Amino acid sequence: MRILELDEIKSLLSGIDLIPAIEDGFVAYSTGQAVVPPVGELLLAGGECHIKYGFIRSQSNYVVKIASGFPGNAALGLSSSNGCMLLFSQETGQLNCILLDEGHLTDVRTAVAGAIAAKYLAPNAVSRIGIVGTGIQARAQLQYLQSVTDCRSALVWGRSQPRLDDYVEDVSGRQAMSAFRIETTLEIAEIQERCNLIVTTTPATRPLLQAEALEPGTHITAVGSDTPEKQELDTEILRKADLVVADSIAQCRLRGEISHALRNQALDTEQVVELGNVIAGTSPRRTHDRQVTIADLTGVAVQDLQIASAVFGKSL
Amino acid sequence: MRILELDEIKSLLSGIDLIPAIEDGFVAYSTGQAVVPPVGELLLAGGECHIKYGFIRSQSNYVVKIASGFPGNAALGLSSSNGCMLLFSQETGQLNCILLDEGHLTDVRTAVAGAIAAKYLAPNAVSRIGIVGTGIQARAQLQYLQSVTDCRSALVWGRSQPRLDDYVEDVSGRQAMSAFRIETTLEIAEIQERCNLIVTTTPATRPLLQAEALEPGTHITAVGSDTPEKQELDTEILRKADLVVADSIAQCRLRGEISHALRNQALDTEQVVELGNVIAGTSPRRTHDRQVTIADLTGVAVQDLQIASAVFGKSL
Repeated sequence: MRILELDEIKSLLSGIDLIPAIEDGFVAYSTGQAVVPPVGELLLAGGECHIKYGFIRSQSNYVVKIASGFPGNAALGLSSSNGCMLLFSQETGQLNCILLDEGHLTDVRTAVAGAIAAKYLAPNAVSRIGIVGTGIQARAQLQYLQSVTDCRSALVWGRSQPRLDDYVEDVSGRQAMSAFRIETTLEIAEIQERCNLIVTTTPATRPLLQAEALEPGTHITAVGSDTPEKQELDTEILRKADLVVADSIAQCRLRGEISHALRNQALDTEQVVELGNVIAGTSPRRTHDRQVTIADLTGVAVQDLQIASAVFGKSL
Repeated sequence: MRILELDEIKSLLSGIDLIPAIEDGFVAYSTGQAVVPPVGELLLAGGECHIKYGFIRSQSNYVVKIASGFPGNAALGLSSSNGCMLLFSQETGQLNCILLDEGHLTDVRTAVAGAIAAKYLAPNAVSRIGIVGTGIQARAQLQYLQSVTDCRSALVWGRSQPRLDDYVEDVSGRQAMSAFRIETTLEIAEIQERCNLIVTTTPATRPLLQAEALEPGTHITAVGSDTPEKQELDTEILRKADLVVADSIAQCRLRGEISHALRNQALDTEQVVELGNVIAGTSPRRTHDRQVTIADLTGVAVQDLQIASAVFGKSL
């Protein structure tokens, strides 16, 4: 049994081509080769814990991932997201690897899913990337988008100027993101006005992006909402969209933007297609630059499985 | 963050008074101080994996326990049960302890629950302990019963003489169990005829104990059935019983002996009382020696929490 700590995981990650690895996971999921039960959840006084688990039949391991979000941690000088992943043998149940990633692999696989969504759904010419939020995921999404778009202009929205300043300082200091020209705004409307590839990354429980402000040719990836309560998009945006893509239709029925749109009858389940089928080419992707497309990402255990297996494999 | 391996866990366990620790967990659960979501489950080609998780509000950690059962492991010279437990801070979500117990703590907390059930439900004078099954749990149950009954006569039933011989050889060789006089049988009826404290520990999917053979004054603890498919007791036994106790009514509705009896209308949910309330004294225990009592134990995350917390606490 192997124990991998965060530093080693980060160094192993740099040698892995994550986009195809995670794409394979989505395809396996959407084509019925994976078993992914509903997400386990603990709601604690100061935060929440999600347990995601599952396996792909053709592989050797199953994964159990425990991830937590405790918003108050920042005030204690701790990361708000935390967790670990465990890989067990599908043949014997024996524990093969503990990845003590402190939530980092969840951050990365979520950002990679955002890049995959943009790869298939963003317009050909991205004028400006709009990032809604200033946290870890707001940074990671921008970083991983570099591999799927040439655009290096970003506009970041946050609730306070200090947080926006902190974002810019952090991102400009990272070599992996030094090519970006980053502007900031406190006006959310500016994001929808000036950006045609937008990623929302906040824990908002009331819509930030509005249907009236929706421009033709926009792609929005919503990653912030992963519980039944959280919501970043006006449900009318999903009604207006030409294409709505879920990472998991089963999960998006219960949590995320699509769940709100279904409840408000702004959308029918039959209108939603699954990311794995878009990747496999059996469901449509964007076909012209005036379409509005939405990807709702709630996070699926196959992503955890794929990233954990790739890191573990690299460590052997 | 602390990592405890099996040897260290075993040595720490010897210094812990497990019965009160696990009793406290059951009481917290039955009195609404604990949060325990439904069990997570993965069904693999060669085995199954259960994920149990939860917390008690007044405590500092929450637990996630992953346990697997792979019956084919024995042929590979590996333990059929396996797993680990993780303790995370309720305040920050940070991982505080990984207990690499390889399933041992699950075995122990299950056996301790059996002892607790016997403590409140077994007749005063136990003539002979009947053990149904020959595996790990068949041995652990007998070991932990020593602290709640003076009886040192046991009759063990198994499907094959070699397995029974193996059981006797193992148990007689253990210092902690050397006081027992053990007989074996291949006839299940003999268990019901000669024993008034019976523990069933098999993965049977068809009833082993029969209602016609039920003797007055018998207590049966059923620990083998922890899935909707498994069943060790004829549901008519539960109809005939004077008292039916569940470790968790919510869980026993879905899995274990009680779930079968409810489906067969041999029992109403209102007739079932919960072990934590029996311990707390708010539900009845056995009141005279002619009663038939049944305890259905499917395993609750508070047991995992209590044993993991006790071991972690001892290690500090």
